Amino acid sequence: MHTIKVNLKNRPYDIITGYAILKGMGKYLRALRLGPDAYIITNKLIKNRYGHILDNSLKAYGFNVKFKLIPDTEKSKSLKIFSDVIKALAAYDRKKLIFLIAFGGGVVGDLTGFISSVYKRGIAYIQIPTTLLAQVDSGIGGKTGIDLECGKNLAGTFYQPQVVFSDTKLLETLKPKQLRDGMSEIIKYGIIKDKNLFRYLERNYRDILNLRRKALESVVSRCSAIKAQVVAQDEREEKGLRTTLNFGHTIGHAIEAAGNYRLYSHGEAVALGMLVACDISRAKGLIPDKLQRRIEILIQNTGLPVRIRNLGLEDIIRAHYRDKKFTGPVNKFVLIKGIGKTKIVRNLPLKLIRAAVRKRLS
Amino acid sequence: MHTIKVNLKNRPYDIITGYAILKGMGKYLRALRLGPDAYIITNKLIKNRYGHILDNSLKAYGFNVKFKLIPDTEKSKSLKIFSDVIKALAAYDRKKLIFLIAFGGGVVGDLTGFISSVYKRGIAYIQIPTTLLAQVDSGIGGKTGIDLECGKNLAGTFYQPQVVFSDTKLLETLKPKQLRDGMSEIIKYGIIKDKNLFRYLERNYRDILNLRRKALESVVSRCSAIKAQVVAQDEREEKGLRTTLNFGHTIGHAIEAAGNYRLYSHGEAVALGMLVACDISRAKGLIPDKLQRRIEILIQNTGLPVRIRNLGLEDIIRAHYRDKKFTGPVNKFVLIKGIGKTKIVRNLPLKLIRAAVRKRLS
Repeated sequence: MHTIKVNLKNRPYDIITGYAILKGMGKYLRALRLGPDAYIITNKLIKNRYGHILDNSLKAYGFNVKFKLIPDTEKSKSLKIFSDVIKALAAYDRKKLIFLIAFGGGVVGDLTGFISSVYKRGIAYIQIPTTLLAQVDSGIGGKTGIDLECGKNLAGTFYQPQVVFSDTKLLETLKPKQLRDGMSEIIKYGIIKDKNLFRYLERNYRDILNLRRKALESVVSRCSAIKAQVVAQDEREEKGLRTTLNFGHTIGHAIEAAGNYRLYSHGEAVALGMLVACDISRAKGLIPDKLQRRIEILIQNTGLPVRIRNLGLEDIIRAHYRDKKFTGPVNKFVLIKGIGKTKIVRNLPLKLIRAAVRKRLS
Repeated sequence: MHTIKVNLKNRPYDIITGYAILKGMGKYLRALRLGPDAYIITNKLIKNRYGHILDNSLKAYGFNVKFKLIPDTEKSKSLKIFSDVIKALAAYDRKKLIFLIAFGGGVVGDLTGFISSVYKRGIAYIQIPTTLLAQVDSGIGGKTGIDLECGKNLAGTFYQPQVVFSDTKLLETLKPKQLRDGMSEIIKYGIIKDKNLFRYLERNYRDILNLRRKALESVVSRCSAIKAQVVAQDEREEKGLRTTLNFGHTIGHAIEAAGNYRLYSHGEAVALGMLVACDISRAKGLIPDKLQRRIEILIQNTGLPVRIRNLGLEDIIRAHYRDKKFTGPVNKFVLIKGIGKTKIVRNLPLKLIRAAVRKRLS
């Protein structure tokens, strides 16, 4: 079990990672003094698989437990489900000392965090991420949100949990596709922040995909530590540092959107986005061919896509313009100058972007 | 024209009060460097009366202006209108450098503030309060929110505007009932914070109700200064100081709720709540009969109610238990020990509360 501190000025909190730690939840929460009512937002699959462990652990330490199920789909990050859940929460909340637990992947985490941040102008919540992607990325850092018809995460807040509890045993029931989605963000951390992690992944990616306990524990705690450090220094993405986490995400989001969020998963789109960002970095002479090739091989080895299929150049460019991060007439790209070295570039010429995307079309 | 600073650590901002200052809005906003797109949330009545002044002023300084109308009713603080407006905003927002203007009373201000706080995880907004109540109270301090079926303001945030622009000329078209609603909060400031203001009101309440320019300017700027000071010291109501602003609101909210928000307006209910709080203060020997009588006379003179009509004791007590501020098994009352002197009391015996409410029933 590892404890990583997110050193935020106003309120530091822990990320706890480890194997089969979920049963220790009740004891840990007792010490946080959050009040007696735990309101757990999750989906049917997670509840059926792991709900009893959480339920028993919380009840053993005197908590009242209520599970609130939401559909297991990206569409649950909607105004409709937000309204439904917050109404149900308000109707259930009698003792007024309630806290929320996000028990699921990114959708559950983003929705639960958002509800926690606005219900009664903010109540406590806990993240228990159950996917690899959520454990290494979305469950950490307090970005909450729901999607509007016009775009993803258009309503949201920065709102930190009381603790993140990442039990790597929960990852054992994930599908290969879900593991690959997490791998994409793990590779991102290696590229932008950590040479050793990158080399480790080149040698041991199979261990992660094969759910080796040690490999999972190692990458989850390492990635959590990287994200914790970035978030502690730039919680609200105001100083450019947190922006580096968007490596691969500018074009990644555009690919996701252009494919209507069905053609490519987030991790797949980010993998392609990272490759485009590498292509641009190479075109600008920031990295050598060899490094670009190493990154492409690692991505390919994990089973993530390296070519953009079934999408046109213009679809992607158009979606890119609609991105939330596109402020005014200025775009913002995270490029790399080497493993562990990023460079944020504003107003990158469209010609360069088009050329790099075109190269990736198959 | 008065400029009052809200000295918040992270981001101070101004409250500007004065007569016929709305036409100077464009010039002031230009200096704030907010981006070119002003999205004004208001209702038809306000737009018809004063929209052209704001529109001209903003356009003269190069802003693009879009008015978004919401129904002129308490019901506009709903999830439904929140959803409608944020969707419309996202669909309209092309240039991505948009800011919001709340142009109206408390409903418009609370809704606009809430939308600003969550749209793209927070964008800039401006308060232009158009009622006396909003100018002295709800427009200041960054409490935003919408109502759920289970209770008022159950979804909201603390989110400060870039500036509050209180033009007292806009108050000239208010109805007497709307003026009285504001008077109730003004009297509250006098009671909890300012002997001189209280005495001024005793002598000059008619001037306010008769819309004398000097009297309005004087109370709006004085009350803004009091609220600014309290908010600067306790933005998120964590230190007890901001809690004193809830004087009269505990039972006031219960009376409002028991009357289904139709029988009594907010100001009327707060007036009654203040009298109940005074009655309790007197019963506990904190204030003499004479002071209690002075407060009652001032409230009565302004035309606000001093007796609770058409509600039963149990309706009010039941609503009191449902209040958002009732945390766990502990209630929290703001009492007074004299003009300008408050005392927060936790776990006040129900017997005392019942006796005081019963006394006010007619």
